[in-house]
Amino acid sequence: MINLNGKSIAELEEIAAAIRQKILQTVSRNGGHLSSSLGAVDLIVAMHTVFDVTRDPFIYDVSHQAYAHKLLTDRWERFDTLRQFGGISGYIKPKESPFDYFGAGHSSTSISVAVGAAKAIALKEEQRIPVVLIGDGSMTAGMVYEALNELGERKYPVVIIINDNEMSISKPIGAISQYLSKLMAGRSYQGIKGWVRKALQTMPPDMKFLAKRFDESLKLITPGILFEELGLEYIGPVDGHNLSDLVEVLTLAKNLGKPVVVHAQTIKGKGYTIAEGGHEHWHGVGPFDLATGKPLTTSSSAKSATAIFGEELIRLAKEDHRIVGLTAAMPSGTGMKGAIEAMGDRFWDVAIAEQHAVTSAAALAKEGLRPVCALYSTFLQRGYDQVIHDVCLQGLPVIFAIDRAGIVGEDGETHQGAFDLSYLRPIPNIVLFAPRDEETMRQALRFAIDCPKPCAFRYPRGAFYPHEQVPSSGFELGRLQMMAEGDDLLLVGYGNGVGRAMAVRQELAAAGVSAAVVDLRFLKPLDETALLELANRYQRWYVMSDSAKAGGVGSALLELLAEKDQMVRLKSFEYGDYFITHGKTEVVEESLGLLPSQIAASILTDLKPNK
Amino acid sequence: MINLNGKSIAELEEIAAAIRQKILQTVSRNGGHLSSSLGAVDLIVAMHTVFDVTRDPFIYDVSHQAYAHKLLTDRWERFDTLRQFGGISGYIKPKESPFDYFGAGHSSTSISVAVGAAKAIALKEEQRIPVVLIGDGSMTAGMVYEALNELGERKYPVVIIINDNEMSISKPIGAISQYLSKLMAGRSYQGIKGWVRKALQTMPPDMKFLAKRFDESLKLITPGILFEELGLEYIGPVDGHNLSDLVEVLTLAKNLGKPVVVHAQTIKGKGYTIAEGGHEHWHGVGPFDLATGKPLTTSSSAKSATAIFGEELIRLAKEDHRIVGLTAAMPSGTGMKGAIEAMGDRFWDVAIAEQHAVTSAAALAKEGLRPVCALYSTFLQRGYDQVIHDVCLQGLPVIFAIDRAGIVGEDGETHQGAFDLSYLRPIPNIVLFAPRDEETMRQALRFAIDCPKPCAFRYPRGAFYPHEQVPSSGFELGRLQMMAEGDDLLLVGYGNGVGRAMAVRQELAAAGVSAAVVDLRFLKPLDETALLELANRYQRWYVMSDSAKAGGVGSALLELLAEKDQMVRLKSFEYGDYFITHGKTEVVEESLGLLPSQIAASILTDLKPNK
Repeated sequence: MINLNGKSIAELEEIAAAIRQKILQTVSRNGGHLSSSLGAVDLIVAMHTVFDVTRDPFIYDVSHQAYAHKLLTDRWERFDTLRQFGGISGYIKPKESPFDYFGAGHSSTSISVAVGAAKAIALKEEQRIPVVLIGDGSMTAGMVYEALNELGERKYPVVIIINDNEMSISKPIGAISQYLSKLMAGRSYQGIKGWVRKALQTMPPDMKFLAKRFDESLKLITPGILFEELGLEYIGPVDGHNLSDLVEVLTLAKNLGKPVVVHAQTIKGKGYTIAEGGHEHWHGVGPFDLATGKPLTTSSSAKSATAIFGEELIRLAKEDHRIVGLTAAMPSGTGMKGAIEAMGDRFWDVAIAEQHAVTSAAALAKEGLRPVCALYSTFLQRGYDQVIHDVCLQGLPVIFAIDRAGIVGEDGETHQGAFDLSYLRPIPNIVLFAPRDEETMRQALRFAIDCPKPCAFRYPRGAFYPHEQVPSSGFELGRLQMMAEGDDLLLVGYGNGVGRAMAVRQELAAAGVSAAVVDLRFLKPLDETALLELANRYQRWYVMSDSAKAGGVGSALLELLAEKDQMVRLKSFEYGDYFITHGKTEVVEESLGLLPSQIAASILTDLKPNK
Repeated sequence: MINLNGKSIAELEEIAAAIRQKILQTVSRNGGHLSSSLGAVDLIVAMHTVFDVTRDPFIYDVSHQAYAHKLLTDRWERFDTLRQFGGISGYIKPKESPFDYFGAGHSSTSISVAVGAAKAIALKEEQRIPVVLIGDGSMTAGMVYEALNELGERKYPVVIIINDNEMSISKPIGAISQYLSKLMAGRSYQGIKGWVRKALQTMPPDMKFLAKRFDESLKLITPGILFEELGLEYIGPVDGHNLSDLVEVLTLAKNLGKPVVVHAQTIKGKGYTIAEGGHEHWHGVGPFDLATGKPLTTSSSAKSATAIFGEELIRLAKEDHRIVGLTAAMPSGTGMKGAIEAMGDRFWDVAIAEQHAVTSAAALAKEGLRPVCALYSTFLQRGYDQVIHDVCLQGLPVIFAIDRAGIVGEDGETHQGAFDLSYLRPIPNIVLFAPRDEETMRQALRFAIDCPKPCAFRYPRGAFYPHEQVPSSGFELGRLQMMAEGDDLLLVGYGNGVGRAMAVRQELAAAGVSAAVVDLRFLKPLDETALLELANRYQRWYVMSDSAKAGGVGSALLELLAEKDQMVRLKSFEYGDYFITHGKTEVVEESLGLLPSQIAASILTDLKPNK
């Protein structure tokens, strides 16, 4: 651990510079969250100077900006394994280090964590102080206000640093962001401090009461009034790259004994000129050339599912004026950016606000429009109650385009799209389906637009699993499609699992086993008639889908077969009962035994006793 | 429909009085949400006077306060069926009436609905204006701020009436509530209006610029600054029982062409002296005597699961100082009220804020405490992502005490506890179990306190299903308990399903069929060894659990049996693919074929072809 206590400002600046170099070297090689990590270096150095990481809870919101924290706490040497399988995680991870207090990956959890920690600290009568680092983008999610609401009443000592770079992943959205910008445009911490100091100097010593009133009136013109109305102290804005100011302000905040917001202004990408200013491109990057900023990897030739979705959405929306769309701070990630740029009156980024995205989409559907709500599988978890209560119970035809379904690669545990099928399947009224390739991806969106009920289709990060194409005539509600005939057994694929099943079929053929492949297409409603016919023809079914086994695709089939008294031997190659780590997707899949060769070997073993 | 347009204030007051009488008559007979319904009568009459219910979206938050709306829109005659099976729902329900714009039951969705509707209205270039009625208690949930954040930026014309009775279901919590109270204590709408009028009268006509500056300074002292900082206009506080003021203010708000908050002060129970003032008791009531306010029904002698939980929690917490607890605005409903009153430094009501409740509980566990998070099954849906991301992924031993699991009776569709097993089961690291009666309820909480992993146990609203007691020696991780031997088939019960299975066993015995009964106790991890033994002994399994079939208990068993190549015929008597309506629980269960006699008949039919 690098102890910063007692270091001079000049020494701290040197350390910050070394950290920036290390981040640049590593991320240019491994990829990662670059601009936010660079922007937060000075804030994190100041946190480590003023607070005690061995005692005080350091709580990073989202925690993609915390590379400096990792480098300051025993991970300098191993840092070149960043985001690689078995290596350092791109996020805070308690299993990785005792100095990682609380894991994150989703946004806006930090203040709740701080409130919980502060309650425990108060109960245990300890003197530790939780310190939170949260970006302005994370301030849009509702749970932040739930936490501030309790904190503002109970007033535990907590220091909340708002890292304001006027930039969440993309352009910031909403009144909160405008409010923070207005604060920025107002007086700065230094300006106000100087003014107060000067004013107090000119005041006779026995006029303390006037100073008090002066302080009151100062509050009115101090821009932090929103936070103060919520019961929190406010200091700022302060230059988030001025270590001297930061150490001074954080020391003040730490000693207040109250909840306090420190509003710091930073520049994304700070220290790497090419990335400074925070273009969305530099938020998360692949390997790149440090000298030029040009990407190093040749991007795969196969088109991503996200890109196909984005193209098709624009094409359909131009024809059908009922189509509108929402995303929650992921315009590029979900491929909705183009539609927002082309048709800004019909496509909205509502900021990190999944609950609001889902429910306001329901109202759009109520008004006769066709809202497409594009979210990552892992983030839709945030809007779960709203999917049940505001969409499905109301029977409103909202379309959920679920991106990043399955294993997402280097982001790892917090971002895996494992659970959506399990949590959506029990909801009445919803239609669940999935495309398997580019052609069916386009068809899926078209089917969704015409579907009179709530529906959700899922697709992987990156390109679909490559496989031999089989023509598709489009989706028909609750109808499966046979992909390949075979004599010995049935491979059931769903979504990206279809490509995997086709690859497994080839492996099995090489071993002399003839497998049929069916694309389930609809998880809900299931194609009961066709499945019962298949149950007569095939005694052994093997299921492939990029989803959790518990409650997933295999489970749905077992429920149907049990209901209909069909005795089929079914094995599922979905995800088991574990959280899935980070790393290249193929490497992670191999570790789970999900490569086609591994699945084929497992099936052959399963067949043996009966051959 | 009763058209209020053009009615005099005196006529409106008469109508309001008649509505109050009708509500009192009906609720005193059927039970229901009394004090909030009475408190909102004048607001709703004013809404119907100023806005056009045939065009403008009327959006009621939670919608338990909207009886007046139902009475004004064609449901006067049928209102005596309130909350009864097949009768009028206690909540807004579009299937019931074209004037019910958007259904609700969970809180804080209304502003998102209004934003979605406003977007659609803007796109369609219509002149309708969404009007929202939301209580101060609903203002604590995060999704309200997600919606305000977008509304404050995009500035659609929306009228938001905050019905401030300084009382959510119980005592209001948090900074927001304090803020609203402060507004109340400040100048009123009438006071400020009078003052401005007087000030402007004394001003020379050519000093308009001064009037403008005066207006600016007025804003600083006007208490609505929090909303104004968020980009919304603010009018208030206004007397929510003064129809003349309300009609004036709502007309002003309607014509602003901007988003505006109208802050109205009301008295819960207004018009029924015994209930006025809003004691928690009068929020939701059973049948009572109008003259005395005394409850009419003799409460059942069996102790409710909630009451047992509350007692045992206090008992254990007195012995074990690591135990802390949280509930989200449901202190009485979850039985945590006693603990909060007895140990206010360790038990907290965090307001309607399930996301924050779950994540701050995780931090409490991180600090070595044993947080018990008591929520209704249906409301835990709001904290789903937090259960995954902040509790289970971190492996922190938070205890979820899931109340109202299964059918909840008169509250109906929005409140049924159907999905928790399906959505929790796929999450790695979690332990799921369930008590079946009073003794095992106490044991469940004790087991939970000692469980080193995240865990959740569920129990019904009201008393456990009555059945012949079988002694229990306490929960042992992943171990089931045999309840009764039998030769012909196996009944598998989970939680309240155990009592049901025992009753089914008796019915079957009368028909000459000998059934064994097992209490599964743990849904996760399953008792694999014992279950595989049972699979050898019994070829037919019938599953009983108060939970959705898709992904539920039967599904978990099917997954295990398939994995282990066991061929068992399994039928599940969990809930099918439908939302479950309101009514007395037994009547609703009968409609679903879930009474023991019905289940037994179904089993006997199932057995026939093989007999």
